[in-house]
Amino acid sequence: MDTPLIITIGREYGSGGHEIGSLVASKLGIDFYDKQLITLAAEKSGLSHDYIEQNEQRAKSSFIQNLAASTAYANGFFSTQYLPLSEAIFISQAQVIRDIAAKGPAVIVGRCSDYILAGRPNTINVFIHAPIEVRVARIMKLKNIDEAAAMKLISTSDKERGNHYFRYTDRKWGKAQNYDISVNSALLGIDRTVDMLISLAQIEELHVEND
Amino acid sequence: MDTPLIITIGREYGSGGHEIGSLVASKLGIDFYDKQLITLAAEKSGLSHDYIEQNEQRAKSSFIQNLAASTAYANGFFSTQYLPLSEAIFISQAQVIRDIAAKGPAVIVGRCSDYILAGRPNTINVFIHAPIEVRVARIMKLKNIDEAAAMKLISTSDKERGNHYFRYTDRKWGKAQNYDISVNSALLGIDRTVDMLISLAQIEELHVEND
Repeated sequence: MDTPLIITIGREYGSGGHEIGSLVASKLGIDFYDKQLITLAAEKSGLSHDYIEQNEQRAKSSFIQNLAASTAYANGFFSTQYLPLSEAIFISQAQVIRDIAAKGPAVIVGRCSDYILAGRPNTINVFIHAPIEVRVARIMKLKNIDEAAAMKLISTSDKERGNHYFRYTDRKWGKAQNYDISVNSALLGIDRTVDMLISLAQIEELHVEND
Repeated sequence: MDTPLIITIGREYGSGGHEIGSLVASKLGIDFYDKQLITLAAEKSGLSHDYIEQNEQRAKSSFIQNLAASTAYANGFFSTQYLPLSEAIFISQAQVIRDIAAKGPAVIVGRCSDYILAGRPNTINVFIHAPIEVRVARIMKLKNIDEAAAMKLISTSDKERGNHYFRYTDRKWGKAQNYDISVNSALLGIDRTVDMLISLAQIEELHVEND
């Protein structure tokens, strides 16, 4: 197939989605993008890496920012420098994601990449989730924090991801119909989930219907 | 493992969920329940098969029914004959589903079976969906009807399933997190989706986390 394979991964915080994506990419020998999208978007937008990292999923446009954006739109300026910064970040990341998808096969984590690449052939949209107790245990271990702190991190992060996704796609984050396959990573564990996704990706005549 | 394997299948209308469930069951050599649950619930409840078929997913309790039920509850009667009929149907089906799950391995389609069996080990909860255009084409062919009629059937049926699921489970129908695996059946087609589910079911050390 001419269009390179792209696997997008949406994931609940603590579900192992990042690790699963990274393993799928390395086993398939293709590129993997997660946090690196921040650096690439920074280069594209002129915003600093740290600013994007802190703000990419916290869309809190101020009145002044929106006013400036409306004025810019009205005057025919569409450059990202006239947009509220949260919109500028989103647009830069969307451009970066489209560039990546045009270049070669890759696994891309988060950043509404399923929505940004909607309709693209040879794209598998994956959502990884897990029961809350499994995610809490995972985050406690990974970050060496207690249960309450892990629970708070998960709840805040999922809320941000859900809001961010809804804001830019007008779709519900984690709604099965938005993905080709959604998996509870605790059903099979990380390694077997990786194997299952690799088997999927290796089906050559894969016919993907995006809507 | 002692507890027999149960695969529950929730499915969008026209997604092929019934066919997938039926093929998975026959290839695994285990029982399959879909419409048959209606007959079994009828036997259990004393309601007629036709009445259950027409009403099982159309919960429209009348004022009189609710009043009768409240009075029955207040008087300590919990027999299904004092419940609104929609509740009586649900409770009978739930008992039938629990009986089936206790008896031996099976595939069970719909009827909130994922929720009814929540917490049960060795249970895989599946949701099958597909893009609307694929479902319309499937229903047009299966029922020999035109596009508008297919669209109407799909929309009515999905609405009924969603409402029914929410009414009895207080959960969103089709929310990825409620299932172990959700699949767009158009990604791989019916046969490959069946194969994938069979591979899953055959993993012996499967550890399922239900919440």
